[in-house]
Amino acid sequence: MTKPPSFQDVIMRLERYWGDYGCLIWQPYSEKLGAGTGNPATTLRVLGPEPWNVGYVEPSYRPDDGRYAENPNRMQMFMQYQVILKPDPGNPQELYLGSLEAIGIDMREHDVRFVEDNWESPALGAWGLGWEVWLDGQEISQYTYFQQAGGLTLDPVAVELTYGLERIVMSLQKVRAVWEIDWDGVHTYGDVFTRPEVEHCTYNFEVADVERLTQMYGLYEAEARSCMARGLVIPAYDYILRCSHTFNVLDARGAIGVTERASYFGRMRDLTRQVARLYVAQREEMGHPFLKLPPVGRQAQAAPTPPAPAASPAPVDRPSTFLLEIGTEELPVADLALALEQLEQAAPLLLDEARLGYEAIHVVGTPRRQAVLVSGLAPRQPDRTVEVQGPPARVALDAEGNPTPAAVGFARKQGVPVEGLRVVSEGEKSYVVAAKVEEGQPAAEVLAGALPALIAGLRFPRTIRWNQTNVTFPRPLRWLVGMLGEQVIPFEYAGIRSGRVTRGLRPHGSPEIALARAGKYLAAMAEQQVMVDPAERREQVRAGAEALAASVGGRIADDAALLDEVTNLVERPAALLGRFEPEYLALPRDVLVTVMKKHQRYFPVLDASSGELMPYFVAVRNGDDRHLEVVREGNEDVLRARFADAKFFFEHDTGQPLESFLPRLDTLTFQEKLGSMLDKSKRLETLVAAVGRALELDGEELAVAGRAAHLCKADLATQLVVELTSLQGLMGREYARRSGEEEAVAAAIYEQYLPRSAGDSLPQTGPGLALGLADRLDSLVGLFAVGLAPTGSADPYQLRRGALGLVQILIAREISLPLRPLLEQAAALLPAPQEALDAVEGFIAERLRGWLRDRGLRYDVVDAVLSARGDDPYGAYRAAAQLSAWVERDDWMDLLNAYGRCIRIVRDQPARFAFRPDLDPEPATAALWRAYELARAQVTPASDVDRLLTALHPMIPAINRFFDDVLVMHEDPAVRESRLGLLQDLWELSRGVVDVTRLEGF
Amino acid sequence: MTKPPSFQDVIMRLERYWGDYGCLIWQPYSEKLGAGTGNPATTLRVLGPEPWNVGYVEPSYRPDDGRYAENPNRMQMFMQYQVILKPDPGNPQELYLGSLEAIGIDMREHDVRFVEDNWESPALGAWGLGWEVWLDGQEISQYTYFQQAGGLTLDPVAVELTYGLERIVMSLQKVRAVWEIDWDGVHTYGDVFTRPEVEHCTYNFEVADVERLTQMYGLYEAEARSCMARGLVIPAYDYILRCSHTFNVLDARGAIGVTERASYFGRMRDLTRQVARLYVAQREEMGHPFLKLPPVGRQAQAAPTPPAPAASPAPVDRPSTFLLEIGTEELPVADLALALEQLEQAAPLLLDEARLGYEAIHVVGTPRRQAVLVSGLAPRQPDRTVEVQGPPARVALDAEGNPTPAAVGFARKQGVPVEGLRVVSEGEKSYVVAAKVEEGQPAAEVLAGALPALIAGLRFPRTIRWNQTNVTFPRPLRWLVGMLGEQVIPFEYAGIRSGRVTRGLRPHGSPEIALARAGKYLAAMAEQQVMVDPAERREQVRAGAEALAASVGGRIADDAALLDEVTNLVERPAALLGRFEPEYLALPRDVLVTVMKKHQRYFPVLDASSGELMPYFVAVRNGDDRHLEVVREGNEDVLRARFADAKFFFEHDTGQPLESFLPRLDTLTFQEKLGSMLDKSKRLETLVAAVGRALELDGEELAVAGRAAHLCKADLATQLVVELTSLQGLMGREYARRSGEEEAVAAAIYEQYLPRSAGDSLPQTGPGLALGLADRLDSLVGLFAVGLAPTGSADPYQLRRGALGLVQILIAREISLPLRPLLEQAAALLPAPQEALDAVEGFIAERLRGWLRDRGLRYDVVDAVLSARGDDPYGAYRAAAQLSAWVERDDWMDLLNAYGRCIRIVRDQPARFAFRPDLDPEPATAALWRAYELARAQVTPASDVDRLLTALHPMIPAINRFFDDVLVMHEDPAVRESRLGLLQDLWELSRGVVDVTRLEGF
Repeated sequence: MTKPPSFQDVIMRLERYWGDYGCLIWQPYSEKLGAGTGNPATTLRVLGPEPWNVGYVEPSYRPDDGRYAENPNRMQMFMQYQVILKPDPGNPQELYLGSLEAIGIDMREHDVRFVEDNWESPALGAWGLGWEVWLDGQEISQYTYFQQAGGLTLDPVAVELTYGLERIVMSLQKVRAVWEIDWDGVHTYGDVFTRPEVEHCTYNFEVADVERLTQMYGLYEAEARSCMARGLVIPAYDYILRCSHTFNVLDARGAIGVTERASYFGRMRDLTRQVARLYVAQREEMGHPFLKLPPVGRQAQAAPTPPAPAASPAPVDRPSTFLLEIGTEELPVADLALALEQLEQAAPLLLDEARLGYEAIHVVGTPRRQAVLVSGLAPRQPDRTVEVQGPPARVALDAEGNPTPAAVGFARKQGVPVEGLRVVSEGEKSYVVAAKVEEGQPAAEVLAGALPALIAGLRFPRTIRWNQTNVTFPRPLRWLVGMLGEQVIPFEYAGIRSGRVTRGLRPHGSPEIALARAGKYLAAMAEQQVMVDPAERREQVRAGAEALAASVGGRIADDAALLDEVTNLVERPAALLGRFEPEYLALPRDVLVTVMKKHQRYFPVLDASSGELMPYFVAVRNGDDRHLEVVREGNEDVLRARFADAKFFFEHDTGQPLESFLPRLDTLTFQEKLGSMLDKSKRLETLVAAVGRALELDGEELAVAGRAAHLCKADLATQLVVELTSLQGLMGREYARRSGEEEAVAAAIYEQYLPRSAGDSLPQTGPGLALGLADRLDSLVGLFAVGLAPTGSADPYQLRRGALGLVQILIAREISLPLRPLLEQAAALLPAPQEALDAVEGFIAERLRGWLRDRGLRYDVVDAVLSARGDDPYGAYRAAAQLSAWVERDDWMDLLNAYGRCIRIVRDQPARFAFRPDLDPEPATAALWRAYELARAQVTPASDVDRLLTALHPMIPAINRFFDDVLVMHEDPAVRESRLGLLQDLWELSRGVVDVTRLEGF
Repeated sequence: MTKPPSFQDVIMRLERYWGDYGCLIWQPYSEKLGAGTGNPATTLRVLGPEPWNVGYVEPSYRPDDGRYAENPNRMQMFMQYQVILKPDPGNPQELYLGSLEAIGIDMREHDVRFVEDNWESPALGAWGLGWEVWLDGQEISQYTYFQQAGGLTLDPVAVELTYGLERIVMSLQKVRAVWEIDWDGVHTYGDVFTRPEVEHCTYNFEVADVERLTQMYGLYEAEARSCMARGLVIPAYDYILRCSHTFNVLDARGAIGVTERASYFGRMRDLTRQVARLYVAQREEMGHPFLKLPPVGRQAQAAPTPPAPAASPAPVDRPSTFLLEIGTEELPVADLALALEQLEQAAPLLLDEARLGYEAIHVVGTPRRQAVLVSGLAPRQPDRTVEVQGPPARVALDAEGNPTPAAVGFARKQGVPVEGLRVVSEGEKSYVVAAKVEEGQPAAEVLAGALPALIAGLRFPRTIRWNQTNVTFPRPLRWLVGMLGEQVIPFEYAGIRSGRVTRGLRPHGSPEIALARAGKYLAAMAEQQVMVDPAERREQVRAGAEALAASVGGRIADDAALLDEVTNLVERPAALLGRFEPEYLALPRDVLVTVMKKHQRYFPVLDASSGELMPYFVAVRNGDDRHLEVVREGNEDVLRARFADAKFFFEHDTGQPLESFLPRLDTLTFQEKLGSMLDKSKRLETLVAAVGRALELDGEELAVAGRAAHLCKADLATQLVVELTSLQGLMGREYARRSGEEEAVAAAIYEQYLPRSAGDSLPQTGPGLALGLADRLDSLVGLFAVGLAPTGSADPYQLRRGALGLVQILIAREISLPLRPLLEQAAALLPAPQEALDAVEGFIAERLRGWLRDRGLRYDVVDAVLSARGDDPYGAYRAAAQLSAWVERDDWMDLLNAYGRCIRIVRDQPARFAFRPDLDPEPATAALWRAYELARAQVTPASDVDRLLTALHPMIPAINRFFDDVLVMHEDPAVRESRLGLLQDLWELSRGVVDVTRLEGF
């Protein structure tokens, strides 16, 4: 085996590779940056229309990531290699993979994966979609299609490749910590960086003077602004960078409170946007000189040659297989599922609309391809007759009924014999009509016209542009296969011409495979080891994982979501068993599981009998099992580093009581206008008491709830939760226990977040329940009050889930609890206007409606109960259940009709009248009055539906008699009003219980 | 011809070259630095005992150098490539030249020269000696042997190579401005840097907010100090770097006054020293881990193999040629001259002392070698007899005179027969003595012992250490040839073993040449085209330059100093004629000449008939005339850039009146405690009036002098003089004229600096004279007052020259002017203590003494006049001249004896008496009294020597008679005192005119 390259060799090889490609090789910047993206060679040059291809090293400083050099690969300074390709060269992934080969990574020996990772920096007004690139489980690169920067839309889009140099070299050199990396053949990375790392950590976390740094920030900002006032882009930008780094140090130092944070972000965003606009204006004024420059290097040679015109064999004349393959860069898991789902729906519609018969449709797909395979597709549409309306009969035919020249002309134009015209009458008007036989078009032609629209019709939550066509898709489209039998279906979409060429597996270099005919697709894919069928892949993953787990006496926990995800991350799964040091089992299980599942997409292995976690995991690689050992080692190293990090955090966190983290909550923003997490937890301490009383908790429970509220957000300031947010609550419970808090307090802290998702468990304790409700109420009221109600698909605070959880909890725990008073309480702590409360109430009711409907309840039933008691989820649920039974009764319509008559006549009465028995001598009136009195005695606004309807039911005869015998709208206004008053009283009975007017048949 | 490498290619080649050599390849720093030296990879890593080899790019920011991108190669940001080799690898120049070859510079096509350039940064407590490396006249690198950094002595010494990347690439690509450099095959340097350059200039010169930057500086400093208090080296150093850059911006902005400057420098020096000490302590505490690392790359292979033991043919047995060649890295011109001079003196002394006869000694040398060739050197010393003293005779011989056992033992010990002992008497003591024949040693052996001391005995003003032997020399010694005939004289010095191998010309790759015998040396050198004889080289340079000048109808101005310098910059001169754009002739001639001579060592070409400057120059290259065209073009480009720069300055400077530069003088330090140049020029305005009055200037002249004093230092703030300091005064005159000042004022401004050197012209106008004197008096008094009188060889303010100039002027202009009153005036403006005035007076008198002695005046004559009127140079000179004539007269001793008798008898009388004629009846007394009265009437203290001695001469008979007839020391005290009083009166006559007691014969 040859010696692996040194750190500096890797850098030099990358410089050479990208330089040869045609990139300008740039240098690290003279300011401290958080990432290569901050270098003006990226931040500014991606703006505007000019092409720009650049590569450079960037030592990147992230004060918060400092670990005093005690972590194997986390540190406040690390080295990026940054590449910008603008515009998209068409093959950036291949270029990137080529660069990995250039530095010595053999694709056949390793597992290189593109794992969805989208990038957004609101502070920079920038976002893009892309991936983390994983090398044997280790994130080694960020790969992003920049869509916006400095608040400006990028056109053309820039491709950003960011290499984490240390991690790549760790893998190449097979060392377990950055500090052991061989830099130059003699010094290690640690030799040159350990001491500075420790020193910077000490400075950032312990020494930096908050007052002085705050002053620096202000001075930098002022200088930046005065530079911009003079139109100076770079000097201004230098100061913006200093602002940013200074802010990062202040933040690491724990010195940024919520108000400050919001203000800092606002100021930085403003500065960045200003400088971006200034730069764009400057380039415009300069006439965009780079537009005139030719490409260089391999970039110049690689200018895409137009594909040879597709050889077009004779059109097929018998039913054949049709194939559409959409070749993409790796789609995110969810987007792949969406694509396949939509293709399954759209494909038959398209064929039906196209009048093309077929035997069967089979939709398959992997992250890199989504394919529609149609067997037995008709070679062409059937012919059909269409009628074309011609001139009015009086014009087309003379008095003898012979065709006039107008008719002859029309017939000629339509290509039918004039004698074929016939007269059609429509009302008073008559026309001649030509019956035209429209010849069925060849299937290929029809599809060529329809397929672009099929692809364009696919919808995804987030898409990008990548080339000059400005077509959008979740990730770039790179090839299109459209074939009918042996014939290519020629079309073009997103600048790509369809053909017969698909591609093989990435680990095999994505070889180009020309398909002889569409029917060979599955065989060709199988030959290439691409498992296009998701179900097949899923089973292979599952079975592989189970077998490996079993080989060490374990099993895989049921986790359909993880299984689905892993299935859709690969084209060809190969499972492998990795192990980790048993000492890590001392960490809380949730921590380990979260790291394995969420971060690494590994399957944890449970002891087959005890269910305890074992020191193993199953990872799934994209590719076959060649050199699986290398991949296994890599993945083990990654997990080891992550566990080491978690252990570092855990030990740090448990070194002090949970309560001691509270002050730092002041630096965590809940929401800018709603203050910090500390503010929120203080509100919760008050609100939980009100909720607890409403829930009728006893004194002890109230005390527990209060204590739990006091501590409930503290874990958000612990390092482990900062790193692994999904562990919030879980770690709170763990740390509360270790801090000697009562178990009930610990439980409530955990339960506040339940349920975290559909199907999750629910709070079991009163304090946990109260706390969870209080938290959700506070969030809903507060965020609605500041105008952050969810809109469309945007729900950044997950208020829908919060409201739904609230509904679920109350129903499941069978607690009838009108929410309006609690909303008022929550509002009083904020404050929030009445409209916000109304909106929240409606919002919760909507979640409730959905939940009820999901349970199969009739919409009118749901409407009827929600209209009456939408603010009491359990009450509404019970009402709906009862009402559902009533509306199924055979005599239901009798009751509804009778009661409905009462309501209908008074519904639009603006005034409320009183019944005056003295004015009305009619016995039917008196009988109804007596019946009412009886029912009235049994029903209150708090009554349930059963009680109400049971009380109403006996009134049917009295009601019917009343309407039969009595004219309600008596000429004497006094009598009339008295009778209306009685009916109003009757209606009143159902108020707050059910709104029968909403029921079907009313 | 192949396409020259792009800018980024050059960087990549350098990275590869130095990486392969075994350097750690580092990255530019994350702070704005003035030079790669500021990167901690240099500043800190050169400290302490650990080895460190590193290479990196460094974008370097020097705000003051900004030219708004209008200069072809001067800008506020430029790119360095920096290499540190520690310890000295033994062949750093060869490694450096190898790197030039690696980036495509063919040594045979170009002129690569090592031109003395020493580096010192008092602010960093750092210095080193080395060179600028010139490529075809362009400075492309700085090459320094670091001796000290951060106030600490470096051991081992580090070699620093700094490449000016832009200049190198300009030359490779044959472009005339950095902005035209091809960066990557498509973008130019200007494409990516012009706009940022202009913006940074605008910011630095116009926008930077002084108040805010001053605050930043303070904050940085405070953070640096608190980091150091915590032992944090790197975070502290980062802030020190920010201090430094902030200071540089403030300075460019013109915001640093004298007091501030001194204070800033003091603070930065203090910070740097502290951080250096902290780093050294840190590495020590870490146990110097790099000491344990092995070398890598070519560095490892290149570990010097010990030379094979010198083959030693049989010792020579007849007179042969002896050769000592000291092979050095390029010695500075002055050091080369010193070395040859000392060898010429030392070589015969050494041979004489070694008792080795020879025919002739020939000392030759070039910058790279200094050789002593001795023809006909005796093969061995002659034998000689030495006498060894033995025991006293009374012990050695018995009563019979026979040897005792003591004598026998002594004789045996001395190896002589006992009968050979003889008795020697010395005063009263007698000893036996053994006459021993000491055999002469072979010459080679004797020389092997003596040569190291010969080299060690050479003395130079500034030397360095470079390797572990800590031997010092102006530049490293690299080889030693020591041969006698065919035989190597084996010795070792500075870690080098002598041998027979010398080296050829650098442009030929410095081939190793083994000499068969010493006598072949000159032939071998001639064959290698090395002209070892300075006289021969000088003539070749002169003749070549003259011929080229003549070829365009011009001639070379006489300039022996330039000729000497050029001669000693090369081993093999080849002159070439370059030209420049005639438009530059519009610049002041002095500017052009200064640039050509001082900066480029070019010979300006004058029109043979008119003497006007022609648009040509002669440059002298080291090497032969191959590819001379390339070298010519390179030199022309360099000169063009320099002229463009001068033009830029000149136009800038003449865009405003001279007077408007005065305020900026406040930012130029004269001396920390003596204030700014503005303070000085204000003092001069006052002082020049006093001096003018003393010189009896008229009213108009006084006005001119006052105005000239007001403006006299203004040109120091102009850009051209900031760049070309030697033009001070010249540009002042030029700018004064252009500002509409009177010609007399302009002339005085120029004349203040005259004479600038021995042989220079002198001020011709009264105001110029007054100003020049005032300036010198102010400097002398002020600097002596603050303790900066010259000591040893240190005379940074050139006070010796100042005082000598003052002497020269007064004498040349024949102005008798007692300086003491003017010194008092100068002191009153400062102030300065009396002791300082005494010291200055003595200091001036010493210069005067030297000047008079240099003119061949007898030391006693000089003493006699200086003792009387040392503060009046012209007076003293005239007195000395007159006195010299008197002391040559035949009757001089009569006068001296007579007058001397008078003085001797009263010289030690503490009291002063009065002559009382009434008390002394002696006629001889009365006669002497009458003679005295006669002389007294002719002489005053202001009289010159002639008048004095002419008056004294007739008194001789009266004096002699007086002493013959009269007893001065009469028994009557009154008479005695009266006679002593008369003699005191006589002595008094010469007071202030001449001190005859100092004359020989007195």
